[in-house]
Amino acid sequence: MGTVLNLNKKSSDPARRAAEEAFARLQQLVGPDMALVNETILARMKSPVALIPELAGHLIASGGKRLRPLLTLATSRLLGYQGRRQTKLAACVEFIHTATLLHDDVVDGSRLRRGRQSANTRWGNKPSVLVGDFLFSRAFELMVEDGSLRVLHILSTASSVIAEGEVMQLMTSNDTNTDEDTYLQVIDAKTAALFAAACQISAVIAERGETEEKALESFGRNLGIAFQMVDDVLDYSARQARLGKTVGDDFREGKITLPVILAFRRGDEDERRFWRRAMERMENQDRDLETAIALMAKHRALEDTIERARHYGAIAKDALEIFPASEVRNSLIGTVDFCVERGY
Amino acid sequence: MGTVLNLNKKSSDPARRAAEEAFARLQQLVGPDMALVNETILARMKSPVALIPELAGHLIASGGKRLRPLLTLATSRLLGYQGRRQTKLAACVEFIHTATLLHDDVVDGSRLRRGRQSANTRWGNKPSVLVGDFLFSRAFELMVEDGSLRVLHILSTASSVIAEGEVMQLMTSNDTNTDEDTYLQVIDAKTAALFAAACQISAVIAERGETEEKALESFGRNLGIAFQMVDDVLDYSARQARLGKTVGDDFREGKITLPVILAFRRGDEDERRFWRRAMERMENQDRDLETAIALMAKHRALEDTIERARHYGAIAKDALEIFPASEVRNSLIGTVDFCVERGY
Repeated sequence: MGTVLNLNKKSSDPARRAAEEAFARLQQLVGPDMALVNETILARMKSPVALIPELAGHLIASGGKRLRPLLTLATSRLLGYQGRRQTKLAACVEFIHTATLLHDDVVDGSRLRRGRQSANTRWGNKPSVLVGDFLFSRAFELMVEDGSLRVLHILSTASSVIAEGEVMQLMTSNDTNTDEDTYLQVIDAKTAALFAAACQISAVIAERGETEEKALESFGRNLGIAFQMVDDVLDYSARQARLGKTVGDDFREGKITLPVILAFRRGDEDERRFWRRAMERMENQDRDLETAIALMAKHRALEDTIERARHYGAIAKDALEIFPASEVRNSLIGTVDFCVERGY
Repeated sequence: MGTVLNLNKKSSDPARRAAEEAFARLQQLVGPDMALVNETILARMKSPVALIPELAGHLIASGGKRLRPLLTLATSRLLGYQGRRQTKLAACVEFIHTATLLHDDVVDGSRLRRGRQSANTRWGNKPSVLVGDFLFSRAFELMVEDGSLRVLHILSTASSVIAEGEVMQLMTSNDTNTDEDTYLQVIDAKTAALFAAACQISAVIAERGETEEKALESFGRNLGIAFQMVDDVLDYSARQARLGKTVGDDFREGKITLPVILAFRRGDEDERRFWRRAMERMENQDRDLETAIALMAKHRALEDTIERARHYGAIAKDALEIFPASEVRNSLIGTVDFCVERGY
């Protein structure tokens, strides 16, 4: 369990503190815009069908980080965009994200989300599927109001890529032969595509050229990959429990994430038998999760997943180098570190 | 069971035969366009993730009537539209419809769809939810390619209204106090909104004015209401079995449709106790479905639901009166009769 302790320790180191401060600064910089995003979200999830705002509000008001809309707001600001379109589009991005969360929790049978009962636990799978559909449609309505076909193109493409990624993930479930490349494809689609789109659309509304649009797309995509890798580490980390999330969800669902792939590949035949029994045949026994975490520690699977995440984080940071130095840019760079080293 | 026999008998009467011929003629008139729609559907449900075209193809290739895209093609033709945009948009409409079918079958736990195993039965709920999301996103991608913000507005609004209708339906489930007005709201949203949109967009691409757009919207909406009412009758009709659909699905799910509402309202206290036990408390006993059908026959609930459907069908037909007489118009009018009197 050395890994878990190690990750915990970092919260007191100076680099980690700097990253936390950068993220807090970014939140502060776009604070007024985010207040408008929240207003838009609340206004636009309304429906005469009372269960819709009730269920959606349960999830939306439950204090997620709003990381994706934050990226839209921050990158708009990075480009010196002076208009007002970013808040509505940031709300779109959050609606798409929320819709996928609702469907994910149904697909994964998750009991908790953001430290509270998941919507599917509280209201059942049926309304979760349908309210997800509603939010997804509402996202498109907002985009249509914004009126940019280019933005619509970026976000509709991202949406279908996300769905492809989710299906791909389902197909690699319980398959310990899944390799790192396939894992990368999955997280690129299911997570990084929306991060990328959330940043790219800022360049569109700010009417910047292809170079800047591509730079922001790359920033978002690589940050998204790093973010998901760290998420996959946290599912095996004691720190996770403090987030109100259950630990070991991925393990119990047979989801093949990078920590599993590394531990499986580096393990001996006995260990691989363990992984196959627990994750392929799902014959769970008491203390299997502890065994899994111990094997990950033995093979440095969590540290090395974080190391891989740092690689993508580094690409994300370099993507921002073409933009003039500014407080927003610094905060975005610090936010990459925050996402990689996070334990919030 | 007189009702069921009565419905069956109609297939041999001249009015019914005329309606069947009108529908066949309409299919023939737009046949070449429909072939293009099918090509677009097949081309655009492709994905490197093999399960997506496999699952989507199972449903899409299973020989649905393609009624909604047919309406887009036929109304475009009614307006003398000479362009080529109608086929891509008709494919969008079918994708949206297919996505909602996939999610509906998950929500309803349906075992059969179009006489085959439903996708959720064959592949499980998880891929059905996700492939639904994919098709829905793909529909928006196609709309964006078409490039009309007005069409995007119409179809994104329809999509969120559909989701609202589905949630509303869920909330009236097992509630025998549901009244006819609420039922109308539900089917207007969950079914008629897409019929309306499928017709309305033809006026947009043909660049017609508000009067014609509204007329087509009204045609589609009223036809959709009639269509759903007849669908709800068929769920209690012997004819349904011949469609490869199970009979009594709505009953077993506790779905409160118009035949139930009429039989419940017209029933005595004993009968209402039966409906409450079977549909609210879901304490099903052997032969409950037979009892339900017998009570519907006693109170003419199926005939009168068809009668209500005829009313909306009549409105739909009159909505077309502002358009010059033509073979397409005649076939569309006959298609309304076909939908109302159908037993296919």
